[in-house]
Amino acid sequence: MLYLLEHFGVGVAAITGVLAARGKKVDLFGVVVLALVTAFGGGTLRDLLVGDAPVFWIHDPNFLLNATAVAVVTFFTARTHQFPGSVLQVADAFALALFTTIGVTKALVFHVTPSIAVAMGVITGVAGGIMRDLLTGEIPLVFRREIYLYATAALCGALVLVALNRYWPNEPMNMPVAAGLTLVLRLAAIRWKLGLPIFRHYSDPDFEKT
Amino acid sequence: MLYLLEHFGVGVAAITGVLAARGKKVDLFGVVVLALVTAFGGGTLRDLLVGDAPVFWIHDPNFLLNATAVAVVTFFTARTHQFPGSVLQVADAFALALFTTIGVTKALVFHVTPSIAVAMGVITGVAGGIMRDLLTGEIPLVFRREIYLYATAALCGALVLVALNRYWPNEPMNMPVAAGLTLVLRLAAIRWKLGLPIFRHYSDPDFEKT
Amino acid sequence: MLYLLEHFGVGVAAITGVLAARGKKVDLFGVVVLALVTAFGGGTLRDLLVGDAPVFWIHDPNFLLNATAVAVVTFFTARTHQFPGSVLQVADAFALALFTTIGVTKALVFHVTPSIAVAMGVITGVAGGIMRDLLTGEIPLVFRREIYLYATAALCGALVLVALNRYWPNEPMNMPVAAGLTLVLRLAAIRWKLGLPIFRHYSDPDFEKT
Repeated sequence: MLYLLEHFGVGVAAITGVLAARGKKVDLFGVVVLALVTAFGGGTLRDLLVGDAPVFWIHDPNFLLNATAVAVVTFFTARTHQFPGSVLQVADAFALALFTTIGVTKALVFHVTPSIAVAMGVITGVAGGIMRDLLTGEIPLVFRREIYLYATAALCGALVLVALNRYWPNEPMNMPVAAGLTLVLRLAAIRWKLGLPIFRHYSDPDFEKT
Repeated sequence: MLYLLEHFGVGVAAITGVLAARGKKVDLFGVVVLALVTAFGGGTLRDLLVGDAPVFWIHDPNFLLNATAVAVVTFFTARTHQFPGSVLQVADAFALALFTTIGVTKALVFHVTPSIAVAMGVITGVAGGIMRDLLTGEIPLVFRREIYLYATAALCGALVLVALNRYWPNEPMNMPVAAGLTLVLRLAAIRWKLGLPIFRHYSDPDFEKT
Repeated sequence: MLYLLEHFGVGVAAITGVLAARGKKVDLFGVVVLALVTAFGGGTLRDLLVGDAPVFWIHDPNFLLNATAVAVVTFFTARTHQFPGSVLQVADAFALALFTTIGVTKALVFHVTPSIAVAMGVITGVAGGIMRDLLTGEIPLVFRREIYLYATAALCGALVLVALNRYWPNEPMNMPVAAGLTLVLRLAAIRWKLGLPIFRHYSDPDFEKT
């Protein structure tokens, strides 16, 4: 069940990777690379940092085949079909919630401290999107107020999951609860346009106005 | 013999790294970093992903000395000398073929599945160039149609090598054949301007015209 | 003592990470990521390359808490307070000297060759800043003449430390001497605007004038 959900998350992340190629004159191969980087980037960085190489998608090549197939199909269908934006946003929020809670759970297996487990959850959730944006020459979206509590939703979900696992170890409902919280936070942030404050320097010319 | 060829490939990659600094106001140190990243980036990423750290150039520091020396020499000679473009392109295609087939061969030593071995070959062949382009602020060249079947040539060579190794294990001619195929494909793509289709979104304003 | 200095270096690097967000419309979360990447990027890359995962900040979560707290405080104080530029430059030069010599020392523990130890020292000193610049969409500062012998100061310090450790192994003054040299070189470069030559291509239009 979790395995199927994980494949669903990888597929959704691959689609967002492909769509990031819009207007960039990227060819089919580049589109597949963007899909793979978005889908695997976060989990790969987590595995390298905690010392669990070979990384997860080398152990299970089904992930590679899944993401590649999704990318190729999206490449051709995007020419003629519109992807329903709101469905994609919900699916992406779902993938964020899933990747984050899987990242925390995996980090805890390695007996890291609570703060590190939270960091690994957030990295698993958002690093793939950061790498995608780097490759397409954008300042990463997760750094910007416009996308409304993306990484912050992951952070809250990761904090709650670590706390739950501390007080109720081995409770199977911990992960669904934390993932649900991440999902709800993310969707609420999109609905009501909630965001974090942005960085302002005292010397900014528009400091008074903002 | 293979070892000498590998050093040749590293030297050629280092030259392309240096020449990417053109017009970017990069200093001597930056040029050396670009050369090293281009020459070592792909193999380093492969080693990290399959869990073979320390990475290859830490085991054999001759690679570091070779690439650094080539970079410094290129830095000074580029001020007054023209590099023959077509010679460089052939040398670079040769390095691509070599890195890709070495990447596949090394991955197979780690008993990965065929699809992962192909992915590792392509990563070894093209990731260094992607990192070079990131550092100079460009959208990676291998993503763009303009460079004509670069990564795709690597992909074909890797696929063929994995297939050959499956049916004729330990056959010493497998690697030269696959490398030759990659080289020929790449040079043919340059000669006849062959490329993959680029990504188009149904809402692109110029969709009709392209 | 060294441990306290290391935390000081991490804090200073975190501040430079935050200040790089100026004018980029980065939110609070993005600012924390920039601080962490700047502070941990070099050491993390070194640990991955030599095969020492889990990386250093996973072993000791105090670094994560320190850098995050510094980033959040800087985020809010930068709105109203001016950071004294020259104090920051000296603190940053100090962090560069510290990170570089720690990087060399750690690499030597892994019995690498002298040239690799030098490379690891430079990577530890400058890679965090390179990653910070990548994330904010800039061509890395350490590649540019404007910042005056930044990476070169690290290179000289690393070379001297490797030489000292070779001829006087276990001499406790080696590290302070090499760190001091790096610091003095960097500050002298700022004071007298010393820099490396930049890359020029024979076909550059402004070749005669520069």
